Amino acid sequence: MLMKTASQTLTEQLAARFAQRIRDRLLAPGARLPSVRLCAQQQGVSPSTVVGAYDQLLAQGLVEARKNRGFYVRESTPTPVDSAQAATKKVAKNIAQDGAASRERAPLNATALIRGMFHGISDKPQPGMGVLPQEWLQTTFLSTAVRRSCGVEALNAFSLQYGEPAGDLGLRRALSTKLAGLSVQAAPEQIITTIGATQALDVASRALLRAGDYVMVEEPGWAIEFARLDALGMRILPVPRRADGPDLEVMARYCEEHQPKLFVSVSVFHNPTGFCLSPSSAYRILQLANQHNFHIVEDDTYCHFAPEHATRLCALDGLQRTIYVGGFAKILAPNWRVGYMAAPAHLVERLLDTKLLTTLTTPALLEKSLAWCIDQGQLRRHAERIRQRLDVARARSVKLALGAGCTFAAEPVGLFGWVDTGVDTDVLSQRMLDEGYLLAPGALFHAMRAPSSLMRINFATTQNSAFWETLVRLRAEQG
Amino acid sequence: MLMKTASQTLTEQLAARFAQRIRDRLLAPGARLPSVRLCAQQQGVSPSTVVGAYDQLLAQGLVEARKNRGFYVRESTPTPVDSAQAATKKVAKNIAQDGAASRERAPLNATALIRGMFHGISDKPQPGMGVLPQEWLQTTFLSTAVRRSCGVEALNAFSLQYGEPAGDLGLRRALSTKLAGLSVQAAPEQIITTIGATQALDVASRALLRAGDYVMVEEPGWAIEFARLDALGMRILPVPRRADGPDLEVMARYCEEHQPKLFVSVSVFHNPTGFCLSPSSAYRILQLANQHNFHIVEDDTYCHFAPEHATRLCALDGLQRTIYVGGFAKILAPNWRVGYMAAPAHLVERLLDTKLLTTLTTPALLEKSLAWCIDQGQLRRHAERIRQRLDVARARSVKLALGAGCTFAAEPVGLFGWVDTGVDTDVLSQRMLDEGYLLAPGALFHAMRAPSSLMRINFATTQNSAFWETLVRLRAEQG
Repeated sequence: MLMKTASQTLTEQLAARFAQRIRDRLLAPGARLPSVRLCAQQQGVSPSTVVGAYDQLLAQGLVEARKNRGFYVRESTPTPVDSAQAATKKVAKNIAQDGAASRERAPLNATALIRGMFHGISDKPQPGMGVLPQEWLQTTFLSTAVRRSCGVEALNAFSLQYGEPAGDLGLRRALSTKLAGLSVQAAPEQIITTIGATQALDVASRALLRAGDYVMVEEPGWAIEFARLDALGMRILPVPRRADGPDLEVMARYCEEHQPKLFVSVSVFHNPTGFCLSPSSAYRILQLANQHNFHIVEDDTYCHFAPEHATRLCALDGLQRTIYVGGFAKILAPNWRVGYMAAPAHLVERLLDTKLLTTLTTPALLEKSLAWCIDQGQLRRHAERIRQRLDVARARSVKLALGAGCTFAAEPVGLFGWVDTGVDTDVLSQRMLDEGYLLAPGALFHAMRAPSSLMRINFATTQNSAFWETLVRLRAEQG
Repeated sequence: MLMKTASQTLTEQLAARFAQRIRDRLLAPGARLPSVRLCAQQQGVSPSTVVGAYDQLLAQGLVEARKNRGFYVRESTPTPVDSAQAATKKVAKNIAQDGAASRERAPLNATALIRGMFHGISDKPQPGMGVLPQEWLQTTFLSTAVRRSCGVEALNAFSLQYGEPAGDLGLRRALSTKLAGLSVQAAPEQIITTIGATQALDVASRALLRAGDYVMVEEPGWAIEFARLDALGMRILPVPRRADGPDLEVMARYCEEHQPKLFVSVSVFHNPTGFCLSPSSAYRILQLANQHNFHIVEDDTYCHFAPEHATRLCALDGLQRTIYVGGFAKILAPNWRVGYMAAPAHLVERLLDTKLLTTLTTPALLEKSLAWCIDQGQLRRHAERIRQRLDVARARSVKLALGAGCTFAAEPVGLFGWVDTGVDTDVLSQRMLDEGYLLAPGALFHAMRAPSSLMRINFATTQNSAFWETLVRLRAEQG
């Protein structure tokens, strides 16, 4: 709530709030500011205060007025990574059958959500966050794990040369065993460590694709994946994700029309829906891949929340044309940035070369520490505790969400809920930001950034009724 | 030297040696094996032994016979990163005025050299290596630095969230001060940490360029830089590097004809020549950049060997259109993989987004440890010791090289010597491998991979006369 102070007028406060949000890109270039009337009503100020604030933003060059259409966040210099927008245009051009037109830019862009995860928006729990809150991840064994490798001799032994291109052998052995538990058979020689699952996805795309290639990605899907592929100049073919897997008819059509080189998929606890791949879908995807000769990257970021027996393409395929991608940011120590991929033997050299071109090697200290956590069973026990805690949190979140008049667009499992609010979540997310809550609006998960009444919630951070009450209140104002 | 044993015939041994080298890509796809007669002479075996060995390699599918031309290492599936070759074709196509034709593939490819740096080829000191030997880098302070941050509370404090997108603030402050000592004014907000200088170069290319863009790179230059830009689909314009800087006439012509978007340069102790940029060249480069609106990435990887007052583009330009890239792999702990860039304020957001798309954040543990090493003056004192030791080593290496009948194509300074052997170093490097020495042949430093009598030596690993005697002997056989 804005309140007049000695040092700042209401106008100045309102202008400063918008300016900050534009700089943080929680209001993206091209986004429209609320109308003067609506903004005045939302903020409880007079229209003239809003007009004054918008004038200040104009003078600062942060917004521009478009005749009879209102105020828009100014485009900065067009950048190659200003990607969600470029993707919209490209996808719209590529997929004529969708008949979808280019739309106005969504207010919250892909990297803004990610930035929101780093900087606390407020002290409140953040429903849009992609990771567990810090207090859930507190352990003492991480410290034990690191201290084992940081004596003078131990540390010098691996710090003073670049290290193994494929990553620490001890970790690759531990991962090989871990994967066997998921029925994915990968020798340590088939495993390459990376800076988080993020680098694994990046390296795989770069090694397998050239700019201009077509790549199939599930939709809804993770905004950063769309943004990365677009920044690399790939052409994205969004495949609707259903409860049992991707829409196979759409995939088949894409294969006929565009000869895509790659399919990127989250089989287990798909982000944001929580959907899990069925065995029959998995089989048909692999048939299609064989028939049309594309590779598959299976992103198993959420494996620590899921049962071991969940269906995975890499397990069926035996890593013939699939690449498995995993990481630990969701369960252990997000900042350690240890991820990995397990790949077909014939692709290992190519992936390794690409890793070398991007970061050379990866830091062994954290890889050795992680290997110890896995080998000692610490990771397994820790994951078990987290799953139990998440089950309790999820039950409470679901009850609160339903009580707030929301529905679940997918059965609530894993870390995320895919929630229908009944109103445009792009608009809602801006209003919720005023109250200190970062949402993950549905548009963020669409290649076209289509407006949506859906949002992704993190079950670990949506257990307080205050959040849901705020949402109910603002939704009513919006509705 | 091959010697018949009970378990393996000479033929089997010779075939196994070639097979291993092909798998390690110390013989790259497309490389020609020596003629039967020459190989027999080199290895001291009969021609029929060589014919038998080549037959085994044929049967294993590792080589192919070309009519009347001999045996060639078989091409594997063409890969996007199989880049040196692709670069050759592209560059040849792009730069008609060079009149250079596509040549046969060089035997040692870009990533092979890098791989050689990781795996010991033998126990001998490796003249082609890009880093200092481990024993030079031994210290006790690295361990002290890490242990400060790995208590339970300290470690949890930064491990359990993704961390600052730009990197640890303490390190960025330390780097800001360090850069001020080089007359490069960069606020901590302009600094982004990366996984080694490698990721900084990668992120800068990706943020500033799109596939198909032209980029000017110094030649001779670092093979990995050519390979990375090519893998990203950029079009490389090689700029001859002279003693005082890049050839400005060639640059001006490129600007007129191709409107390049970027110039990548090593101003100080250029790799492989050791050349340092003159102030007047620096000024003219910046004029050209302003006139033709391109950015500059200045790779200062070798700064710890150089005097602080060396001329740097970023210092003159005040980070207006230049990006400074630095790292510590050459001086401290190559495996820690801490690098950084300092960028113009208006590019920071774009670079940060690209970093997020590639690795999300970077590990704070090693960044905090490095910050401590800088803040405590440990890095400065350590670098001083290394420089003194390198001066002694260089003097000895130079004497041995001259005694071996080699000449220096550039004044010997810094870590590397640029040495003329008088014979084709592609061929020589294969023979030296037989003796357990990894060379860095001149072709590796050329965008076109033109054969060359030059090679790059590391002064820290070329102080033993045995190496030079071997070189003299094999060169005589080759000559």
